[in-house]
Amino acid sequence: MFNDDRLARRAKTLSARMPAPHFPSEFGEETILFDSGFAAPQLLPALGALAQRALTDHREEVLQYASGRGQPYLREWLCDWMNADGCALTPDHILVTNGAKQGIDLICRLLLDEGDAIVVTAPTYFTAIPIFRNYGVEFVEVGQDAHGFDVAALAAALDARAAEGRALPKLIYNIPEFHNPTGATMSAERRVALVALAEARGIPIVEDSPYRRVRFEGADEPLLKALDRSGNVFHLGTFSKLVAPGLRIGWVAAEPALIARMIQLKSEGGSSPLIQRIIYEFARSADFPAHIERVQAAYCERRDGIVAAVERELPGARIAIPAGGYYVWLSLPPHVDGDMLAAKAGEAGIHLIAGSRFFASTGADIPRNHIRLAFSFTTLDQIANGIARLGAVYRSIAGE
Amino acid sequence: MFNDDRLARRAKTLSARMPAPHFPSEFGEETILFDSGFAAPQLLPALGALAQRALTDHREEVLQYASGRGQPYLREWLCDWMNADGCALTPDHILVTNGAKQGIDLICRLLLDEGDAIVVTAPTYFTAIPIFRNYGVEFVEVGQDAHGFDVAALAAALDARAAEGRALPKLIYNIPEFHNPTGATMSAERRVALVALAEARGIPIVEDSPYRRVRFEGADEPLLKALDRSGNVFHLGTFSKLVAPGLRIGWVAAEPALIARMIQLKSEGGSSPLIQRIIYEFARSADFPAHIERVQAAYCERRDGIVAAVERELPGARIAIPAGGYYVWLSLPPHVDGDMLAAKAGEAGIHLIAGSRFFASTGADIPRNHIRLAFSFTTLDQIANGIARLGAVYRSIAGE
Repeated sequence: MFNDDRLARRAKTLSARMPAPHFPSEFGEETILFDSGFAAPQLLPALGALAQRALTDHREEVLQYASGRGQPYLREWLCDWMNADGCALTPDHILVTNGAKQGIDLICRLLLDEGDAIVVTAPTYFTAIPIFRNYGVEFVEVGQDAHGFDVAALAAALDARAAEGRALPKLIYNIPEFHNPTGATMSAERRVALVALAEARGIPIVEDSPYRRVRFEGADEPLLKALDRSGNVFHLGTFSKLVAPGLRIGWVAAEPALIARMIQLKSEGGSSPLIQRIIYEFARSADFPAHIERVQAAYCERRDGIVAAVERELPGARIAIPAGGYYVWLSLPPHVDGDMLAAKAGEAGIHLIAGSRFFASTGADIPRNHIRLAFSFTTLDQIANGIARLGAVYRSIAGE
Repeated sequence: MFNDDRLARRAKTLSARMPAPHFPSEFGEETILFDSGFAAPQLLPALGALAQRALTDHREEVLQYASGRGQPYLREWLCDWMNADGCALTPDHILVTNGAKQGIDLICRLLLDEGDAIVVTAPTYFTAIPIFRNYGVEFVEVGQDAHGFDVAALAAALDARAAEGRALPKLIYNIPEFHNPTGATMSAERRVALVALAEARGIPIVEDSPYRRVRFEGADEPLLKALDRSGNVFHLGTFSKLVAPGLRIGWVAAEPALIARMIQLKSEGGSSPLIQRIIYEFARSADFPAHIERVQAAYCERRDGIVAAVERELPGARIAIPAGGYYVWLSLPPHVDGDMLAAKAGEAGIHLIAGSRFFASTGADIPRNHIRLAFSFTTLDQIANGIARLGAVYRSIAGE
């Protein structure tokens, strides 16, 4: 039907599909979903009255075409919000996107050609992997420790590439806060070092920061964007993790000249002005600070619940305790296969994601002894019940 | 700041920005906007109660992550809607997109590489031009007459390319109904011929059909997708022109294997489930058929008003009377410069778009004696007043 092998070629460039997270509606109550980054249903805000008002008081605004860069009032609010967090932005630095994922995609379109190398952590956010793969990139993987991204390892990898005469990577992608999947947060020292290294080598940083306000304890570390003095950092934000994933509104903060180019690439006609108005009215309402506190308290309680349950039910696993975010990352004893545990647990109605899925590289040398558990969607009772059942599956595999 | 000339190169690939349509809020009442494809404010439906209900009765559905291909109930509704219009689709043929424009972009990503040729009409939809340019395409332009797309001219152009040993175009883009900007509608005979030619040469067709239900008179011609027996047609639909542009929901209908690939490329995390629920509830309500009739009657009245006013005020212009859609296309006497008319009219507070903007090619041989007038946004009074003022500007230029 088609006159060339274009489709077949594209199909090869595209990655194998990641397993989609399970939708809660697919399952009965006995099934427990630790696999998804869904919001806690109990925390979804009541936005009906705001939507009603947007569609009456602002009917023309929210139902007509809107600016491709996002509604001015929302960009101003976002600018203030980031400046209160240490940045020095104007509304021209902000592009409203359909979630942070569209931001990743637009940055790829802006910066990448097939065959380019990019830097990611190993492991990294697994939904970003197929987006990057769509661009036919080569992955340069860098490790993390308790202080986050290993900047010294990146410097060594860049030196090694330079010594081999290979092109430098075209961007560095990272989640500095409450990393998905590891939960690690970069220290201030590492952040300063990463921004300096990236600037010195001329490699843009993509700072993906969906969980920044979902912090349970401790003080904020500086945003990479706040440390950026040369316009070398693209910051990605979203309302998905703080308000509701279904809104599909995020933003990119970057140099105005780059934003202008991204608007041209964001060719879908602008994000929905209706959703932008609803978010704006919620974000500037008195309910918003209270909502954030409620979100932080609830997810903190769930984090505590899952950590205690894992320590009780899977004593052989090492758990990194995150100071925020939606996930815990478990390191199992070397002989325990996380893929097998995920498969067997799924058969027992406990869904989670094997750690191997979070590595951009493929092949035999990916560590197999990790799993990621999301604690965002499940209640405390489900966490206790689900981890107890997971413990039984674990023991049947680990032979403990 | 960046370590190569990537940005500069991209900037070259990107087209000069088209002038954005003016937003009504920018102007006072004396300014008349014939430039935009905005909806008539009077026709924007009351969706507040539906939104309120979506956010209460379906709160979890509309605020959590949703399927990347679109909500199942909306895909089923769209499938039924298109099958009632002569197609033979299943819900797996449907991908919900952020407006039809995202559909164009996804098809480009699926099919095109830099340097590929594509077929467009001359003139063509001007917002599609920069989307195509982002992919670095070569344009093959084909004319139209009162029966729409000139299929014989395309066949000749393809033969000429083959004789020169040049690669065939990778897609054929057209708006078969109420073409933007010309208003022309393809006859059934031409449609059959185009589908057969494209299939014989193995070139996919992109059928962009935003105005299909905005028909004022006469019977529907068959959709190209309904004539397609081999899966060679991508159909693009949208709710922008029938319901409201700000919703940003459209769809692609294509072979399931192609839809599956487009889902991978549509990496922004799925279109908003809130908007999809609102649209679905409106589309299946008793209000929807009445809304469509109201839309058709109101735009028909405006079409009649602008045709009469143009015949009265610009007797030197030839106007092609469209049987539907949002626009009329004026052919001015050869010595009248449409760019100058658009500029002078804009200074006089009458905004419209010069015909030269609708040609994918650039350079001296683009016809300069056309303008496009949108009649969708303006009231009957504004049409009478605005065309009278346009007539005065016209006479000052044309010397009539």
